[in-house]
Amino acid sequence: MAAINSNFLKLKAGYLFPEIARRVKAYTEDNPAAAARLIRCGIGDVTEPLPPAVVAAMHEAVDEMACRDTFKGYGPEQGYEFLRQAIVDHQFADLGISADEVFISDGSKCDTGNILDIFGKGNTIAITDPVYPVYVDTNVMAGNTGVANELGAYEGLMYLPCNAANGFVADVPEARADLIYLCFPNNPTGAVATRAQLEAWVAYARRNDSIILFDAAYEAFIQDPSIPRSIFEIEGARDCAIEFRSFSKNGGFTGVRCAYVVIPKSVTGTADDGSRVPLHQLWSRRHSTKFNGASYPVQKGAAAVFSEQGKAEVQALISHYMGNAKLLREAASAAGLAVFGGKNAPYVWVACPDGLSSWDMFDRMLHEAQVVITPGSGFGSAGEGYFRISAFNSRANVEEVCRRLRALVG
Amino acid sequence: MAAINSNFLKLKAGYLFPEIARRVKAYTEDNPAAAARLIRCGIGDVTEPLPPAVVAAMHEAVDEMACRDTFKGYGPEQGYEFLRQAIVDHQFADLGISADEVFISDGSKCDTGNILDIFGKGNTIAITDPVYPVYVDTNVMAGNTGVANELGAYEGLMYLPCNAANGFVADVPEARADLIYLCFPNNPTGAVATRAQLEAWVAYARRNDSIILFDAAYEAFIQDPSIPRSIFEIEGARDCAIEFRSFSKNGGFTGVRCAYVVIPKSVTGTADDGSRVPLHQLWSRRHSTKFNGASYPVQKGAAAVFSEQGKAEVQALISHYMGNAKLLREAASAAGLAVFGGKNAPYVWVACPDGLSSWDMFDRMLHEAQVVITPGSGFGSAGEGYFRISAFNSRANVEEVCRRLRALVG
Repeated sequence: MAAINSNFLKLKAGYLFPEIARRVKAYTEDNPAAAARLIRCGIGDVTEPLPPAVVAAMHEAVDEMACRDTFKGYGPEQGYEFLRQAIVDHQFADLGISADEVFISDGSKCDTGNILDIFGKGNTIAITDPVYPVYVDTNVMAGNTGVANELGAYEGLMYLPCNAANGFVADVPEARADLIYLCFPNNPTGAVATRAQLEAWVAYARRNDSIILFDAAYEAFIQDPSIPRSIFEIEGARDCAIEFRSFSKNGGFTGVRCAYVVIPKSVTGTADDGSRVPLHQLWSRRHSTKFNGASYPVQKGAAAVFSEQGKAEVQALISHYMGNAKLLREAASAAGLAVFGGKNAPYVWVACPDGLSSWDMFDRMLHEAQVVITPGSGFGSAGEGYFRISAFNSRANVEEVCRRLRALVG
Repeated sequence: MAAINSNFLKLKAGYLFPEIARRVKAYTEDNPAAAARLIRCGIGDVTEPLPPAVVAAMHEAVDEMACRDTFKGYGPEQGYEFLRQAIVDHQFADLGISADEVFISDGSKCDTGNILDIFGKGNTIAITDPVYPVYVDTNVMAGNTGVANELGAYEGLMYLPCNAANGFVADVPEARADLIYLCFPNNPTGAVATRAQLEAWVAYARRNDSIILFDAAYEAFIQDPSIPRSIFEIEGARDCAIEFRSFSKNGGFTGVRCAYVVIPKSVTGTADDGSRVPLHQLWSRRHSTKFNGASYPVQKGAAAVFSEQGKAEVQALISHYMGNAKLLREAASAAGLAVFGGKNAPYVWVACPDGLSSWDMFDRMLHEAQVVITPGSGFGSAGEGYFRISAFNSRANVEEVCRRLRALVG
């Protein structure tokens, strides 16, 4: 008999978004008339087309693939030099990152999940609560947790509560952790960490010989120039942090698929024999053995994000979505709700009215306003009593959501 | 301190192909004049452009991404229905496979590596020798082996020797294994398994409650109509096998990236509590949590492989490469070498002359004929004394390789 990975059986029944999809499907099937009014602000998926610079670059790359002399077979597993260098030049200039510390992939979900391949057993894992569910579920699958309690919290994980009191930025804990997942701008709360807060985390990691897994997928949405865009802006982070970035939300690549991890060669972990091993070497081996490079036309499209035209077009997309976020913030505030996030992130995090639970608010928004939001409790028990509105939508849809929200709650 | 996965340290220094690249680089840097003559028949990478049907479909898909009304964000993690259904209709008609048993991915290397996520510890793993190195290395990384001996064989793996005596098709062993990797048409030897041989393997798996991981990446190259193209042509395989397929070698997608796994819902493994769990459910969860779907333009391109035009164009590509294989077989035979494979696969597997070792033959072909081949010992100790010639090349290059091989050896 073949043994399966029984850790999978500890996972709770549904990943958050499939459960949302299930409820929406049930509602729209029962209410076909209302279905036509449905506006989706749940899953954080972009809605606007690819920047024209990206479209042109992808067409060119497809044409290269049509001609023997320019055809590309297997590319470098770590990504093409043209893209790795463009990333360093445009995203990490003056931060001491070199192109060979950048690993191109097909998505941040893959990267943040697969990264556990290079870590051993027995690490203490710290995650914020609420949190992007992938961090938790991949640790469960890897056997780094016990079972979940009735609130959905897994035995063995160190949860760092984020709430209105700490501005949804986790305080550095007393206890030590080996791996710490941080996501800024935050999904789901839209919170950002100040330089001082990130300095405290880097100091903690260096003091405790820990590693920070820094998810900066939403970096492009930062408006406040005082907020660091990369963990590597913090002195000492090159010794204790790796960073995940994506083209999903800046270039609108959720359906195109491209992301990257930055692993400085100076970040090390400890082997069973006590020796220190660079994570860069481990991830390079993992990437070479279990991945075969991102699609060539996709990498060409990603590089176009950094062209002059591409940068201007991405900026217009960001402005569009952040304009949406501002409207959503204002509408929720006008309705008398406590509002967080949405200033440096495409997510607005809102306290439920009238003591409603997150899923009760989800159902109310769905059934009474035909708006799909994401229940905060889906991101962890500390998210209970909140809901997330995504700013990824057309302006017209967002304006309509604002009207419906005020009609429902205001 | 963060513990790393110390199993990585058991891996031998270099994956085969980086070592080949290193030797080629050293030679060509020292001999720039000879470098111009270099012909690469090493890594199994396609050389001919994408089929025009694929190119057209990818352009159309990129244009869809350029327009708000047709833009695609996140797709289904398991792949678009249009592609899953096309695969079933064109590749598994009458084999009892349904579209929701097909999982689209970005590559077979990823799939054959990641599949270990869903299996537990303590399984006995059987692999053929020689073998595609990814099967071995990913088991090492997952902790399913001990350390390697001086021949590169890892403690704890069950090696199934393939040699001229068994026609490079592993005999069904006496001992039982929990997971068995089979690859037909074989990489690296080009061998194929007859229906009777596959029936023996399925009977073995059913008798021992084992699971066959069947890699059919080279299925399109089968010329002999009596040779099964899928393990699911064998009665009972739906209860004990999963199959890996790729667009890399039929559609020429090595740089485009698309593949799939077929996991019948009836294949189960055993959990720690003794319950039987469908692998389909586990992989679906793995795929949803650690993957975010293959690129949309790539999936559209893959579906075009099954259009009438696409099928004709793929057939022309296959005929081209198999014509190359025939020439290479004939030249090696004419040079007095023992030749295997190359009849139903794009790889010709050749015994080294004069008792040369595989790497000695590699160096001799590189230094004296400026032809890059792959040393058989790179695929396992049973490959010692053989080398692999890839038929993926232009006709002119293959004809030149044939001339040089005869001049060198004949």
